[in-house]
Amino acid sequence: MKLGTIKDGTRDGTLVVISRDLKRAVKAEGIARTLQAALDGWAEKSLALDVLYKGLNAGKVAVGTFPFDPKQAMAPLPRAYQWVDGSAYLVHAERVRRSRGAELPQSAYEDPLMYQGASDTMQGPRDDIAMSDEAWGIDFEGEIVAVTGDVPMGAAEVECLAAIRLLTIVNDVSLRGLIPAELAKGFGFLHGKPSTAFAPVMATPDELGDSWKGGTIHLPLTATLNGKLVGQCDAGVDMSFSLARLAAHAAKTRVLSAGTIVGSGTVANRDESKGCSCIAEIRAIETIKHGKPQTPFMRFGDTIRLDMKDASGNSIFGTIEQTVVKYAPQRAGA
Amino acid sequence: MKLGTIKDGTRDGTLVVISRDLKRAVKAEGIARTLQAALDGWAEKSLALDVLYKGLNAGKVAVGTFPFDPKQAMAPLPRAYQWVDGSAYLVHAERVRRSRGAELPQSAYEDPLMYQGASDTMQGPRDDIAMSDEAWGIDFEGEIVAVTGDVPMGAAEVECLAAIRLLTIVNDVSLRGLIPAELAKGFGFLHGKPSTAFAPVMATPDELGDSWKGGTIHLPLTATLNGKLVGQCDAGVDMSFSLARLAAHAAKTRVLSAGTIVGSGTVANRDESKGCSCIAEIRAIETIKHGKPQTPFMRFGDTIRLDMKDASGNSIFGTIEQTVVKYAPQRAGA
Repeated sequence: MKLGTIKDGTRDGTLVVISRDLKRAVKAEGIARTLQAALDGWAEKSLALDVLYKGLNAGKVAVGTFPFDPKQAMAPLPRAYQWVDGSAYLVHAERVRRSRGAELPQSAYEDPLMYQGASDTMQGPRDDIAMSDEAWGIDFEGEIVAVTGDVPMGAAEVECLAAIRLLTIVNDVSLRGLIPAELAKGFGFLHGKPSTAFAPVMATPDELGDSWKGGTIHLPLTATLNGKLVGQCDAGVDMSFSLARLAAHAAKTRVLSAGTIVGSGTVANRDESKGCSCIAEIRAIETIKHGKPQTPFMRFGDTIRLDMKDASGNSIFGTIEQTVVKYAPQRAGA
Repeated sequence: MKLGTIKDGTRDGTLVVISRDLKRAVKAEGIARTLQAALDGWAEKSLALDVLYKGLNAGKVAVGTFPFDPKQAMAPLPRAYQWVDGSAYLVHAERVRRSRGAELPQSAYEDPLMYQGASDTMQGPRDDIAMSDEAWGIDFEGEIVAVTGDVPMGAAEVECLAAIRLLTIVNDVSLRGLIPAELAKGFGFLHGKPSTAFAPVMATPDELGDSWKGGTIHLPLTATLNGKLVGQCDAGVDMSFSLARLAAHAAKTRVLSAGTIVGSGTVANRDESKGCSCIAEIRAIETIKHGKPQTPFMRFGDTIRLDMKDASGNSIFGTIEQTVVKYAPQRAGA
């Protein structure tokens, strides 16, 4: 089944069920007002949502359906209680280090890198990337993510796999100019990882069919920067830690509450012809080859488009399409 | 005004208004079902809550009041959308570094250290500290925290000061055995900072009177470990960055949504006679003086009590009283 959230003037929006072809939607109000509410009572709510989804696909929902417009979509979870992001495609980290003349430590191949991200202001698929300063080195990062149910402390990978409720793709916006100094302080990312943007749709793993296997999605993630295809890395290739393994890593010393979002880190393939899912890696490859980077980070007006299509060429989660703009504060009175 | 959340079987509990003396409470259902809902619409909701609070203190709420029992309290925000924790008492960091023969870099005196914490499973004031392994080096950390309203990106300290809605004290549980290896990986805390516990009550800044000044609380935080007083550090002394400054730091590259919790880091004073607000610092002082630490980290069965009293000796936020226990998974079916 496919779920999303549409704008209604509230902070959490309205949960909608979206047809498999992403063309029609219907509010799920009678079942759950928000996606978080659905996740909080998933065992029961998901059954009712699935009935609605099947009816929508079959054209049998008599009232309340409307054309699904991604411009009206918020992030499926506009505010989430947890966002943890791993670094599962080690070739990404290897290239970035190699461009600096360094090597990835052996421990990275056995013990996942993961940071605790901000989850209070998730961005919608068409929201602008609003930043105060171009000099921050604005970059996109194409990733796949899983949303979990409740996960006990110390849960094994197989238990986490069973707890994966939904999947989608994200743009983990990164500020490359701020990250080196921030990481040198030793407490991880804060300024360098502003609000993450989500595709309009989250899908249950069964929607992926054979492409969902071993805790990852075996399909290419396409990245199009200012209209030019720059990446088509397969998320099922060169992934060292599955989404389930990453969830188990996060759960080592604490339970994860329902609605926890677990990210893969930038999708990357060893095959260079597949391109890259972020500018930093493009620049790393340029530096390794030519001694210096050529591709600039994003400027105001630049656009990024991320998408994942199934074997028949149909978008699964809908596209993320964002433009970088200069931030202008809205002083809300709440 | 003083607010808290009591258990009702749901994930977010029921918002209650609590009398100034912490003895009586009344549900705020007609105004807001949860504290997050109150924070989401603070401009309007806080006025109605304040009327209820004044009536409760004056003994004029005719129906629905009941004795307030901290054992029935959840964390005031049982699930929060954001928890960022600074390191504002630099003497704490200095002592820990000095015990290892290192010095704090000069940058730490100008640019706050801060980590993004997990906010999906905040613990109540009497909840056990449930951990799988004593060898993780279980420690408490006594801190003060502010809860903000919406904060625009790039907000100045003075703007953040005006956005502070509520204050309380927390136990930022830390796993000292896991932190060094984790920080060496470079992505900050994940395993080393499990769920944080909160006092039963959050208070608006006006409740603190003259003790709320310059973005901090000028009162001692008492820490009692296994019945022995080990710390009474004044949170208004030796604080290098106010709670408002810490919020401004967090807001540099993104907006903070209402209900963001900003922490001070372990409260610490240069005057050694005031003791310490965590075991790691006690051990650092022991190491500096005697060459090795003497005080062990917490074991199963150990207890920690944190409290902050006003000038008249009355607890402001109620006490945190927790016992360390062996974690036993509850496999919920949600």
